[in-house]
Amino acid sequence: VDRRRRFAVIMAGGSGTRFWPWSREAKPKQLLALTSSTSMLAETVSRLKGVVPPSNIVVVTSRRYRRQVAGELPRIAKDCILAEPVGRNTAACIGWAATEIRRRCPDAVMAVLSADHRIGGRSGAFGGDLAKALEVADRTRRLVTFGIRPESPATGYGYIRAGAAVRGAAGAREVDAFVEKPKAAVARRYVANSNYYWNCGIFAWRADVILEEIAGNLPELASGLARLEATRRGRSIPAKALDRIYGELPAISIDYGVLEKSRRVAMVPASFSWSDIGSWDSVAELWPADRNANATRDPLLALDSGSNIVASGGKPVVLLGVDNLVVVDAGDALMVCARERCQDLRSVVARLAEAGLGELR
Amino acid sequence: VDRRRRFAVIMAGGSGTRFWPWSREAKPKQLLALTSSTSMLAETVSRLKGVVPPSNIVVVTSRRYRRQVAGELPRIAKDCILAEPVGRNTAACIGWAATEIRRRCPDAVMAVLSADHRIGGRSGAFGGDLAKALEVADRTRRLVTFGIRPESPATGYGYIRAGAAVRGAAGAREVDAFVEKPKAAVARRYVANSNYYWNCGIFAWRADVILEEIAGNLPELASGLARLEATRRGRSIPAKALDRIYGELPAISIDYGVLEKSRRVAMVPASFSWSDIGSWDSVAELWPADRNANATRDPLLALDSGSNIVASGGKPVVLLGVDNLVVVDAGDALMVCARERCQDLRSVVARLAEAGLGELR
Repeated sequence: VDRRRRFAVIMAGGSGTRFWPWSREAKPKQLLALTSSTSMLAETVSRLKGVVPPSNIVVVTSRRYRRQVAGELPRIAKDCILAEPVGRNTAACIGWAATEIRRRCPDAVMAVLSADHRIGGRSGAFGGDLAKALEVADRTRRLVTFGIRPESPATGYGYIRAGAAVRGAAGAREVDAFVEKPKAAVARRYVANSNYYWNCGIFAWRADVILEEIAGNLPELASGLARLEATRRGRSIPAKALDRIYGELPAISIDYGVLEKSRRVAMVPASFSWSDIGSWDSVAELWPADRNANATRDPLLALDSGSNIVASGGKPVVLLGVDNLVVVDAGDALMVCARERCQDLRSVVARLAEAGLGELR
Repeated sequence: VDRRRRFAVIMAGGSGTRFWPWSREAKPKQLLALTSSTSMLAETVSRLKGVVPPSNIVVVTSRRYRRQVAGELPRIAKDCILAEPVGRNTAACIGWAATEIRRRCPDAVMAVLSADHRIGGRSGAFGGDLAKALEVADRTRRLVTFGIRPESPATGYGYIRAGAAVRGAAGAREVDAFVEKPKAAVARRYVANSNYYWNCGIFAWRADVILEEIAGNLPELASGLARLEATRRGRSIPAKALDRIYGELPAISIDYGVLEKSRRVAMVPASFSWSDIGSWDSVAELWPADRNANATRDPLLALDSGSNIVASGGKPVVLLGVDNLVVVDAGDALMVCARERCQDLRSVVARLAEAGLGELR
């Protein structure tokens, strides 16, 4: 695919309450430096270097984060940052971005990425895989998704069951089924079966193809997007129209709304490694760990303590006789939680106001 | 006893490593505001108000803390702060203070207090009991110790078995035995038996009587104190002489060295309540607690969490799904420890240097 036809959409709208107290309503996780020394959003952009021209990168975020996102990404033009007045799940987000991209380039092939994924593996693996997927998507007019060979029997991810090879696209396979997050025993079977892959939520497709599929499977979304586009004045949609129309779009994920229904989905096995940085628990695999699996980037003295995660922003921490804790200091707030309760931080944030701590949301 | 003959010695030499990271080599626990909003040392002094004149209060501390102690106690004269070049346990400390007090007032009756005790009960109880004990000590020439009626079968305190009433001293009893820290089952029997009391380590005696008892039971200490006194120039002992002689004094507690051997010990039952603030665990009973027994003076949101102790210096803290932890933020260091491991903080402090954190000792 000619470079000028390559586009990328980065979904960066999440609030990331599960990374409280580092993440806040005013500072979502994609703006945190969780996986490296720069923000996950900036990392996601830099991962596209050499594959997608910077002027062809579109970031979809929430209106409340527009300013921070723009500040974080000085090389991305302002009209390439789409600010949702309200989140309406991934189908609306991708549909809006595809409409915008097709308008700029009717022949565009677009990658869809999330700003809160960790991508690893050998240098260049991700870029190479992405270029290949864009090529397959363009040539076959398929909805291409990446499959990740499972490193562990994860129960927090959905799986893909891959089928026959796709003709005329070396390495690509048919998707026989998308499988919901499995129980542990089922996940173990999947890992042992070479036809199962993690569904990582990274996609490649032609803008016109995904819009056709939205029209076919989510007609209400398609008509909403058309009404939105009809209000356009020059390069932008007026804020009032956006407020009115965007909030009425159906809120459904691209997976449920399109991929599980479409007959032209294909999967490209990834050569890069991947994980979803969904909660504090998931950073344990990213950060340096001592021999008792205490993961941290901060000065730590851990005695008779194991499998803890510590994020103190550089402050020295001592642990004595404790296991499986997440200890996070954000300067103005401190959080200690059991690792298995990480997912429940969302409800904690909702209850801060009860304790008179509403300003820490 | 005439007020001018009443003296008090406050022992304030401890390093309090078990309150790390709030306590440091440079800031021992008696200088921390653990029990109220002022330091435990200042609280101990203010407790003597109306019983012992401020000019008759002698504080024994370590030379390294002399300046801080003087700053904390502006109403105590400089020559009333005795700075040990090295700690030699309580017999030496009390012997030195008694020598100093007897020199100033040959007929003195002195109370001996520690700077790390919590005293409670009804207003005036402590002062009244202390005045009574000084009276008994003067009239009977006894070594008077306070007995505390146990509130719980504590295994961390020594006990006193009280005997017959002391003639001519209403309420005072003979001490039949000092009992070592008991096992839990034994402690429960003691609590059920009205003759057992906690040995709180608060004493009253005439200065000449305790020096007679030291001469009789610890002749080596007595001769060391005499050599020390022989070097006196005016109001003070020259530092060089203090360094040389003090370090050679036998290091033994007043309990082992004198009280357990003397035949003229008596006990006065206390009407005040008491506890030894020996570790983070012990502050749980002092601080406000929520209905799940989470004790703190800081803003706390505790969900599915119980029996934790939180000391964050005012920073908001969230606990989620954790029990029996001590969480302490000292600004420049953070500590999370299992409550039952509090006593081991001493060894943690010794190991800070290993982790490159020696400056936090």
